[in-house]
Formats: sequence, C-alpha cells, structure tokens
Amino acid sequence: MAGSTFGTLFTVVTFGESHGPATGCVVDGCPAGLSLDVPVIARELARRRPGGKGPAPSGRKEADEPEILSGVFEGKTLGTPIAILIRNTDQRPGDYDGLRDLYRPGHADWTWEAKYGLRDHRGGGRSSGRETAARVAAGAVAGVFLASYGITVRGWVSSIAGIRIPFPGEAGFDSEEAEKNPFRIPCAGYVERVNAALEALRQEGDSAGGEVFCSVTGLPPGIGEPVFDKLDARIAAAMLSIGAARGVAFGAGFAVSSMKGSENNDAPFAVQHDNAEHGGAGLPPGTLPPGVPELSYRTNNSGGVLGGISSGMPLEFTVAFKPAASIRRRQETADRNGAARELVIEGRHDVCIVPRAVPVVEAMASLVIADLILMQRCGR
Amino acid sequence: MAGSTFGTLFTVVTFGESHGPATGCVVDGCPAGLSLDVPVIARELARRRPGGKGPAPSGRKEADEPEILSGVFEGKTLGTPIAILIRNTDQRPGDYDGLRDLYRPGHADWTWEAKYGLRDHRGGGRSSGRETAARVAAGAVAGVFLASYGITVRGWVSSIAGIRIPFPGEAGFDSEEAEKNPFRIPCAGYVERVNAALEALRQEGDSAGGEVFCSVTGLPPGIGEPVFDKLDARIAAAMLSIGAARGVAFGAGFAVSSMKGSENNDAPFAVQHDNAEHGGAGLPPGTLPPGVPELSYRTNNSGGVLGGISSGMPLEFTVAFKPAASIRRRQETADRNGAARELVIEGRHDVCIVPRAVPVVEAMASLVIADLILMQRCGR
Amino acid sequence: MAGSTFGTLFTVVTFGESHGPATGCVVDGCPAGLSLDVPVIARELARRRPGGKGPAPSGRKEADEPEILSGVFEGKTLGTPIAILIRNTDQRPGDYDGLRDLYRPGHADWTWEAKYGLRDHRGGGRSSGRETAARVAAGAVAGVFLASYGITVRGWVSSIAGIRIPFPGEAGFDSEEAEKNPFRIPCAGYVERVNAALEALRQEGDSAGGEVFCSVTGLPPGIGEPVFDKLDARIAAAMLSIGAARGVAFGAGFAVSSMKGSENNDAPFAVQHDNAEHGGAGLPPGTLPPGVPELSYRTNNSGGVLGGISSGMPLEFTVAFKPAASIRRRQETADRNGAARELVIEGRHDVCIVPRAVPVVEAMASLVIADLILMQRCGR
Amino acid sequence: MAGSTFGTLFTVVTFGESHGPATGCVVDGCPAGLSLDVPVIARELARRRPGGKGPAPSGRKEADEPEILSGVFEGKTLGTPIAILIRNTDQRPGDYDGLRDLYRPGHADWTWEAKYGLRDHRGGGRSSGRETAARVAAGAVAGVFLASYGITVRGWVSSIAGIRIPFPGEAGFDSEEAEKNPFRIPCAGYVERVNAALEALRQEGDSAGGEVFCSVTGLPPGIGEPVFDKLDARIAAAMLSIGAARGVAFGAGFAVSSMKGSENNDAPFAVQHDNAEHGGAGLPPGTLPPGVPELSYRTNNSGGVLGGISSGMPLEFTVAFKPAASIRRRQETADRNGAARELVIEGRHDVCIVPRAVPVVEAMASLVIADLILMQRCGR
Repeated sequence: MAGSTFGTLFTVVTFGESHGPATGCVVDGCPAGLSLDVPVIARELARRRPGGKGPAPSGRKEADEPEILSGVFEGKTLGTPIAILIRNTDQRPGDYDGLRDLYRPGHADWTWEAKYGLRDHRGGGRSSGRETAARVAAGAVAGVFLASYGITVRGWVSSIAGIRIPFPGEAGFDSEEAEKNPFRIPCAGYVERVNAALEALRQEGDSAGGEVFCSVTGLPPGIGEPVFDKLDARIAAAMLSIGAARGVAFGAGFAVSSMKGSENNDAPFAVQHDNAEHGGAGLPPGTLPPGVPELSYRTNNSGGVLGGISSGMPLEFTVAFKPAASIRRRQETADRNGAARELVIEGRHDVCIVPRAVPVVEAMASLVIADLILMQRCGR
Repeated sequence: MAGSTFGTLFTVVTFGESHGPATGCVVDGCPAGLSLDVPVIARELARRRPGGKGPAPSGRKEADEPEILSGVFEGKTLGTPIAILIRNTDQRPGDYDGLRDLYRPGHADWTWEAKYGLRDHRGGGRSSGRETAARVAAGAVAGVFLASYGITVRGWVSSIAGIRIPFPGEAGFDSEEAEKNPFRIPCAGYVERVNAALEALRQEGDSAGGEVFCSVTGLPPGIGEPVFDKLDARIAAAMLSIGAARGVAFGAGFAVSSMKGSENNDAPFAVQHDNAEHGGAGLPPGTLPPGVPELSYRTNNSGGVLGGISSGMPLEFTVAFKPAASIRRRQETADRNGAARELVIEGRHDVCIVPRAVPVVEAMASLVIADLILMQRCGR
Repeated sequence: MAGSTFGTLFTVVTFGESHGPATGCVVDGCPAGLSLDVPVIARELARRRPGGKGPAPSGRKEADEPEILSGVFEGKTLGTPIAILIRNTDQRPGDYDGLRDLYRPGHADWTWEAKYGLRDHRGGGRSSGRETAARVAAGAVAGVFLASYGITVRGWVSSIAGIRIPFPGEAGFDSEEAEKNPFRIPCAGYVERVNAALEALRQEGDSAGGEVFCSVTGLPPGIGEPVFDKLDARIAAAMLSIGAARGVAFGAGFAVSSMKGSENNDAPFAVQHDNAEHGGAGLPPGTLPPGVPELSYRTNNSGGVLGGISSGMPLEFTVAFKPAASIRRRQETADRNGAARELVIEGRHDVCIVPRAVPVVEAMASLVIADLILMQRCGR
Repeated sequence: MAGSTFGTLFTVVTFGESHGPATGCVVDGCPAGLSLDVPVIARELARRRPGGKGPAPSGRKEADEPEILSGVFEGKTLGTPIAILIRNTDQRPGDYDGLRDLYRPGHADWTWEAKYGLRDHRGGGRSSGRETAARVAAGAVAGVFLASYGITVRGWVSSIAGIRIPFPGEAGFDSEEAEKNPFRIPCAGYVERVNAALEALRQEGDSAGGEVFCSVTGLPPGIGEPVFDKLDARIAAAMLSIGAARGVAFGAGFAVSSMKGSENNDAPFAVQHDNAEHGGAGLPPGTLPPGVPELSYRTNNSGGVLGGISSGMPLEFTVAFKPAASIRRRQETADRNGAARELVIEGRHDVCIVPRAVPVVEAMASLVIADLILMQRCGR
C-alpha cells in the first residue's frame, strides 16, 4: 500500500509514471534552517539524466528541471514538507502502443497486472527507472543535511559487463576518475576496454549488468538501530528497492562465508593523537557518550557496521545490478490472451544502466543515513 | 528507537537480554481464527536451540519452553496480540565478568556503548544471538498463517567453512537430507568433509562462516509493494537484521553483474493444462484479477520476484554469514580505559552458527511474507 | 517530523505554505481500478474555497484548480501514488510584511518559532487554513473509494456564533438545506438569525466559533482496530488535527458524563425483515463472518462505535471550533524583540470559518475510514 | 491490525485478555540511562487497581505485581525494549459462562464478533478495562522519562454522576485533595455528596459517568508536530482509545464555539524577571532556538497548545466518560441465535470507573508527550 513512502523520520514519498505528466517527491521531516536551492537538486539530477553521461545514452531527452513547491523560505528549509516537481517533457507514449497487451521478459509487466489488475504500459509506468529521478532529488536534500555533519556518500562502478575494476588500495584505482568517464569507473586504464565491451553488446542488441561500490565517510559511530533497523539492514532494503538490484553485501561481502573468525574480526584500538591517520581521530566533542573512549579498527572487514551500528570506519557496501531487461534481440514471451509471441524491443534503451545507478545508490544511502541520524538524535 | 519492532500489519516486537530473566515477543496483527498451540512454537525453537542440533553445540543448555500469554482462546487466534514468553534458565553471567570493561573484536560491544553510553555486557546483552529465539517463536506464528495459503518456507546450508554444497538440480542434492544432519546441508556425501573442517577449526580455537539458501514455494503472484516495500527489499532488510549476516542475493545473485540481458531475462509463457508441471498451474481461483492470464517462466534467474512483486515462481535467495566473532584464539583489543589488551574468549561458543541460523532465516522470511500478504489483501 | 503524513495504508502527505508557489498532496495506498477525474476533486475544493460560499467570504480569490500528476491512467486509479497539485494564484505576501516580527494572539506564530527557530510569516505559512485545501483534495479521493462501499460522509454546522441549530429529529431540521445556505446550517428558519449575528461581529471586527456535526452512513460493522486505533480514536485525532478544532465528542457526547448506564446503553436486537427500517438490514452478504447474526440498536448514544469498532449504526460526532484568531479589533501582543506591541490585523479574513470547515471535517473522516477499511480488509 | 501498538518513537504494545494468563506491555524506544525499578511501576498500578481506591470497589482482587523482563540492567534503562509482565491471579472465567452467547448492551461483544468472527467472552477479553493495567505500567516508564524534563502530568475527577466539581481558581478547589478521597475529586467538600449519589446508584443496580480533567505542567514550548501529529490531535486519539471515553476538549473546550475571537485569543507577552510568576520564566537554557524570545500568555483558553505545538502554558484538557455498561438492572438484548433475551449482569463491577480512569488518562498523556519530545529532539 504505502509502498512509495520511505523512512521513519526523514521520510520521502515519490510519485509519477514514466510517461505521465510529472514525477516528483515530498520530503517530510527534514530539519529546519538548512540552506537549500534548486541548483543543488538539479546537479544530482543531471548525474542520472537520460541522454546525459553514461554509455549508450538513452535517446530520451529530459530537461529534468526540478521545481521546489514548498518547505523552503528565503533559501532555508522550514522543517515542513519539501515538495519537488519534475515535469516529464519528452514522453513518447506512442512508442509503447505495441506493448499494451504484451508482457516483456525481465520486466514487471505481468507481476504488476497480477497485483493490481491493470497497469500503465507506457515505458513500464511506475516500475520504470524514471521513478529514480524523484529519489535522486530527495537524496540531494538528504545530502545537504548529511553535509552539515561532514558526511560524504560516494559511489562508483566496481564491475561492469563482467570486467572487474580495481578497488581502493589496488593498482590503478583513482577515486577522482569515476566522475570523469562515462562509465563512472575509478580507473582510467579500464575505460577503453569497458567501452569496447559495451559497444560489442550494442551491436548484438544486448545489455550488460554490473556492480556499484559505495563508501560513506565521516559517519559518526552510534548510527543504526538494533534489532530490526540495523544500519546495514536499512541500507540493504534501500538498495534492493532499486529496480535492477539483485544483491547487496557489506565490507568483505560474500567472501566472509569462507573466512575464519581470526581472519574476519576487525581488531579495535584506542585512538591516540599519533594514530589519527587511522581515521578514527577527531570526532567532534559530544559524539561519544561520557566515559566511552574513542576507538578505531585495524581492518574494516565489517564494512563500517558492527551489530547494526556504525563503527566510525567507512560504511562500505557493494550492490549487484542485473543487465537491462529491454534488449533489441528477439525474445519469446506471452500476451494478455495467453498466446505465445515473439518480441523485439525498439525504442530508446541503455546498453548498461549501472553508471546511471550510481547517483541512485548514493541517494538511497543518503536517505537511510539521514533517517537513522534523526533516530539517533532522539535517543540521546 | 523502535528498532525492535518489525512489520507494518503483521508486526512483531522482540524483547530480552541474553542473560536477563527472559526473552520473548509480541505478535500483533495475526488474523483471527487460526489454530495455534505451544508445540508448533516449541518445535521451531528446538531447531535453533543451543545444545541442540548443530555442530560444536554451544555449552549453553536452554529449555526454550515457550508460554503463550495472550491472543489465543480455546486453541484459536483471537486477532489480538500474541505474547510469547521464553524464560532464560541457563544464565551464567559470572562467565562474563572479565568482559565488563573489554570491547571484543567483531562484536557490537563498543558500537553499542557509542550509541547508548552503557550496555549489558553479559553475553552481548541484546546483541546476542539469543534474541533470535524470539524471532523464531514469532516466525512460527507467521508460518501457521502462511500454511493456510499453502506457502512453504524452507532453508538449508549451501556453503560452510568454504565448502560449497550442491544446489537443487546438481548431483547429490537432497532437500530431505538437510534436517537429518547437524550441518543442515542437503547432501549426505558432504557431511564427513564438513565435519572434519569444523573439527580442525575447533582445535585451532577458530570459527567458520557460511551461506544459507532459502526457497519459498506456493507464494502466489502479486505479493510485494512497489516502490520501497518490494518483496526483495523487505527480505533483504530482514536478512541483514540477523546479527552475523553480511550479504544477501536473489536468484542468480551477484552473477547477474556478468550476464547479458539475453541470458538473464526469464521468458514467460502462458500456463496451459499440459505444462502444469512448470509449477505455474493450479493457482486458486481468484488469485489473479479478472482478465489477467496465468503465466509461468522458463527460467528463474529473477529468484521469483520481478519489479519487487512475486512472479509465482519460487522465491529464492542466499544469505552470507560471517564466522562467529567469539573465538578462543588470542586477539588484540582495547578496554574502556583506552588501553590495549589481549583477549582469549573462554566459555561456550559455536564453531559455526550457520546451521542454527537456518530457522532464523526461515522465520524472518515468513514474517516478511505474512506482512506483505496482509498488505496485498487490503489492496485488492 | 513526519507530521504531515497521515494514515497507515490509505495514506496522504500534504505540502505547501499559504503563500508559497503551491499546495497539494500525495495519496498513497488508494486501491487500483477506481474511476477518478479532476472534476470530482474540483467539486470538493469549491466547497471550501475562499471567496466561495460561506459568510463574510475571505477576500482571497483562489481558482483552486487541481491537477492530477500521477496515479491515474485512462480514468482509473493505478494503485500508485496519486499526486494532486494546486497552484497558489492569489498570493499577496506584501500584506504580511508588518507581521514578520510580530507574534499574533491565537496564532501559532511563536510556537512555530519556538519549535523550528524560523517560520514563513506570510499568512501563517503552513499553519494557515490554506493547508486544508490539500486535505480536501485527498478526501475527495477517499470519498470515491468509500462510495464504492455505499458509505456517505456528510457534515453540517450544528452551532454557530452561540446559536444552536436543530439536530436530526428536531423541528426544523432539514439535511438538504445545509448545502443551500452560506452557513451550512440544516435549518432554513435560522439563516436570517445567523446572518444577523455574524454581520454584527463583522461590524465589531470580531469573529465567531461554532460546531460541526458529522454523520457517516452505510459504514459496515467491524471497522476500527482495538486497542489504540479505535475508530473513534482515529477520528478524534483527525478532527483535532484541523487548526481551529478544540474538542470532539461522539454520539451523546459530553452529556454521557451525567447519564446513568441504564439510560446510556444502546439495546441491541436481531435484524429481521420486518424491522429493516431500523437501518441494520440489508448488509451485503459476506459483511459479517459466518455464524454472526446481524444486529441493530434501538438507540445510538454510542454514536455508531462500540469498543472502538463500528456497530453498523450511523457514526456521529461533533467538533467544536474556536473563533478565527485573526480579528480587526486592537489586540495586545509581543514582537521578536520581546517588546509589547499593539496589533490591528487588516487584510482578508473570515468572520467565521466554521462553514468552510465542513468539507475539511468530511475529508478527514473519509481518510480515516478509508484507512480503517483497508485495515479491516487485511484482517479478514 | 497493529492496533495494539502505540507511538512512533517512544512506543508501547500491550497484550493480554482479561481472564487470560497475563497482561503486560513492551515499551520500545525509551532512552538509555534512566533509573527504573519495579516500585515505580507498582505504585501507579496500585492507583488503578480493582479493589483498591475508588468507589464501589470491584470485587476483583488483583495483586498487580509487575515483573520487568528486559531493558533494565543494574537499575538503568538500556535503550532496549522494556517488557513488563503482570500475571492475572484472580480470574473467575466461570462467572462469565452465561455470557458466552449473549451480546451485552453497551459492550463490544457483538462489534468484536462482527470484526473477528470470534471473541474471548470472559470479562470482555481484550476489550476489558483490564487492558489498561498494561497502559499504566507503560505510562510509569514514560513518567520517569518526563520527570527528567521536570514535566508533571496530573489528573483528577472534575465531574461525576452529574455533579460538577470546582476547577482550579474556584472556591473549594484543592489539588492535594484528589488523591486523598476515593473519588479523586479535588474538593473535600463534595466527597459526601458524591458518595451519596453513587450509593443511590448502587442500590438501583445502575452506574455513573463522569469527567477527568488533566493538567500537564513543565512542558516546554515547541512540542507537537504539525500538521497531523499535533500535540492536541495525539492527545485526543490517546484519550478516545480509553474504552469508556466519549469526548475530549482542550482549554476552554466546547465553550469556544460560543466565544468571540476577542474573548478567546490568549494575549502573549515577553517574559521578564518581574513577571516570572506567570510561569513562563526560567525555561532551561537551550529550550528555545537562538533569537526567539521567551513568551508567556495572559490567559490559557488554548489549553497550552497553539497550532498543535505546546505554548509553554499548562496543557489542559477534559475527557468525558460514559457510565459503566455493566449494570445489574434488567436489560433487553440479543443472543448469537438472533433471539431476544433479557439480561441481568451479576458479578463484580464498579458503579463508576471514572476515578480509576485518572491514572489511565495520565499514563496515556505521558506516553504521547514522551513520544513527541523524542520527535522534537530529532528535529532540532
């Protein structure tokens, strides 16, 4: 029912069908007094925009110009709901007439009808990636709130079309690079190879999956609510709520299932001035309750969360995305009459949506963390 | 804050510290008129009981005899809150005196203090696996509700101590076997090998991780709420809310990131009498809205969920668990005074908790599905 | 925080400051397949519109033309969020410059600053009655859903400026009359008297309070969730969430405190064909669980709710509204510098907002009942 | 569904049928580090105990000895769920055999069956006043939290059996008196008269209603969430969730409907040292955001809330209670077969439950305020 509403305190509801008049969101619970304007939101929208950066740009051209309808007065948030409207300007519903009675493989066409009895077939209606524009707008608001804590949420593509990209600490890794190339990979040396792989798939009329790695720095310890609202549990739900996501893992990830406890345990140590470089030092006064010493950890297999609560180490997780379901290759499927049909999807589709998923991952992570920080505020 | 409350309609709150007087739960929202008694709950508790099945049984011996305090009258649920109490009978708080001021590696000791300023240090207090007994009790209630729909939730160990166990369709796989051996692996041929690996670790005073595979059959299509309460998103949160879980993946899992769309898309077909064996046939009348044909799929890379909504194929997912953090090997750590300390954890601990995690995975999946089925009921 | 979000399953979030660019709402959880169009919403908005019906029409002239941004496709609800946008067209922020640093008596100016540290001073910002336009739009959607059950929600003014209007069963009462006169009173004989009283107050530059009586017919028995989500508890919250409301009472109301049990108890009787006129007859098949006989009641002191659950009798309640706080008479107040100030409020204000509150009361009641009907659906 | 769960951050779920094994609650979200022990809870339970204070003590004798099962360690709250168990010791289910198939006038017997299809008929099962014992236990925990803010919640009987008791400021009012007499009336001079009235009703086998007045002092300004979670809206829901409550009103109450704006508006003034006696002075530093002056009000017709936000004046409201439905006088009713029946209720019942409702009103108000204070914490 209320499946389009997210969060407990810092909440967002998104609305809009892919080819309806508009998409948008209402952010409720954002604290008062923060500086917020349209450019902050527009900048993030530009990062996910179809026809913007990203390989095989979708032919769809959306201005994605957000309008702030409420919640901001004289440049400051009021503590009231922030409604953001994004008009759809490049609808081509006609492109989809042929799909009205067809159920596309890998899409939610039939499950949607099984649930609701009807659907907006134009571009997947609400199950379209178009919905994520509203999430990115909401995430930009959350990002402003997190910035006031010195928290940075940053993602990049760590694997694409089966090509594994170097991770932090490995040769060739360059976190600055990710926003410079269309694939959002943090390694200039791989750009050509990835481009070739995606071009080959485009020729075949096929698509590619990939993985996004996300790192959150500056997150104070103590964020996350045991038992069911653990930081990692909330992040996991947020990531799997992104259409094409099929898995999520934290820190050492699935590899932990083969590790020994002695290998996996992160050894804590008390932070002294002379080991500030371990990142634990310099917590703002009052971050920790009285009598609790500041610790850091020699390793971060836990991905920055222990017992569902942030440890002060970077929160790190990876999200796996399936290849885009819309491909030009001929596929077998069925229609509303239960007849077998062959399908060739024309129109405007990305070979790989993973680079464009990066700002969505960041947005969802920002929304979760903003919500849990408010939770922590009221518990202390 | 309300982090110990789970669900929207079929809700549960769990309570209890590991070495406090009791653990338990209150299930609110279970429909009226279901047959429920103590043995149904006790049977599930026995499956996760310390000292029960499972390798390297923990020394802790708990009777785990549940008492139903409310919500059931003359053997039927009343539609009112069902409170279930489980007394802790084998507390040995004395075992933990040495840990009062120590922060154990891989545990939530310090993050808990960073959050709350104090903790119950005895056996991890509320961050202990002991809390999952209450989840299993609640899951048993959900299971009774799901059984009335013909839904079966079944998990087993698919990887342990780095040993990968055969999957359905592979040689040696036997779903009946899982509950017959202490490791809950569905392949008799691997029992000896796994036992040897865990014994070796016990000698070293170390621990092992593993993976649990869970399959939900009989789930009708249409379950799951777009956008944020997707079936897979809710399952992901539920799984990561289990202490040692570090990752979750659906269907083809992380492998999708290397697949092509043409490989990953599951081809739908209309269900006719003559292909009932594909499992799609025989949906109860009224399951699908008028005019929607019954479909099934040639493959199940999606793991039974498309667009966050169940497809009628089995819901399949894998959860990765880290090795138990409590090990007898000497570890470096820190104490409340910020001093470096060496730690050797004595007392009663499992070499591998993964087999005991199986009923917890099943319980959490059952709670999510019960909640989403109630959601779907009110949407139709 | 999330104080602008209402409901559990049939939810609405409203947004908008009085003199910002727009007001509106997002309704999430409305079932799919209902016929919905703009005129249904516009009709209800017209009933509360400033400058529309109502005594001493506020000078503010708002077109209040709603736009449906999402959730409706080819005239039917999709089951997705229904976003409704209402542009503010007649802002005159300049009218309020003098109030920027003043705290008006009877208004939320100072409490708002005490909470948030800042406010939009223009017309009360979000604490303005303007916000209720969004509620009325959302209520219109709920009304369409309730109509599919044959439920009618109807309110009128039962007391205004101290003049008590006849109730159902009393001489002069005429339920058809209420929408024919500007005061929404169900008794033509009182129109002149009420008009005179309000005119006198206008001359004085003062304002009047009043009471709204609301009756919900066609509500099936079984609606409302014990213990805390009782039908009357939810209605009470909804009514007190309307700015000027100061009290709510059900059925016999505050008079029950002076009654004896033998006077107050409503005697039940089984509904037979020959007493269908008691209103209990003709429940749609399946309304009651198997084995439960259909009852009705000889009286309705309970106002249609027993134990928080609807009884099948009309749901009846009264809401008390304080006189509008904005008056032209000179008042003592304080400013941001803590200095004493004298205030004379010019600009456009109603002498009595109670007639315009009627559609807001109906809208809020409709939203509560829609939410509880969905709740009941999933419990059965 | 989840109708037995209350609150957003400071939450409570209650459980238990009147004649089941136990009643109790789980409080989730109570901040860590508060001193809490059994006597604090037992003291409040004693105030509502059947057979305790109160006129015509119910024959039922319950020890009402609470047990804290979790959430407290070494006398301090842990920030984890606090489960409180109260065993039912004086069940006499046999007393109710005659009512198994009867629907009692004024009770929820039939509406409960209309909803769930079955009920625990013994003493009303969960719709019994017995359930309020769990609320009072939870309210005691909230009271400890509020005490840390210097907030006092105090109620008394302001009208009983049609006899109006003096209010603060009127002759004879004595707030100390309320806890000294069995009727909880704040005026010794009325005790005899009230006693006589209730005795007369007992002779007739009838029952009496009444009103409870509640005053909350020490509440800082800024508490309450616009729009839907207004302080008064939340209080109204909490009060109507008490079984016999039929109405609630704030400050001047229903009288506002006859007042003029110039009479009703409370005039604010800036608090200076020399008018500290107005109660506004001495707010703890940091209570108000920077730049917001401290105000107080010359009158309190608003009952301490403006725009749904606390004003710093005492929060004052009145709750109307209907007379107890269980009376010994012969009544007409119906049974499960739809046959007309005559009913005389024997057994153990109060002539007037209103005095015992006082601690329930206080408990519910305390839970609402605790929840909204946590809300406010996270917004600032």
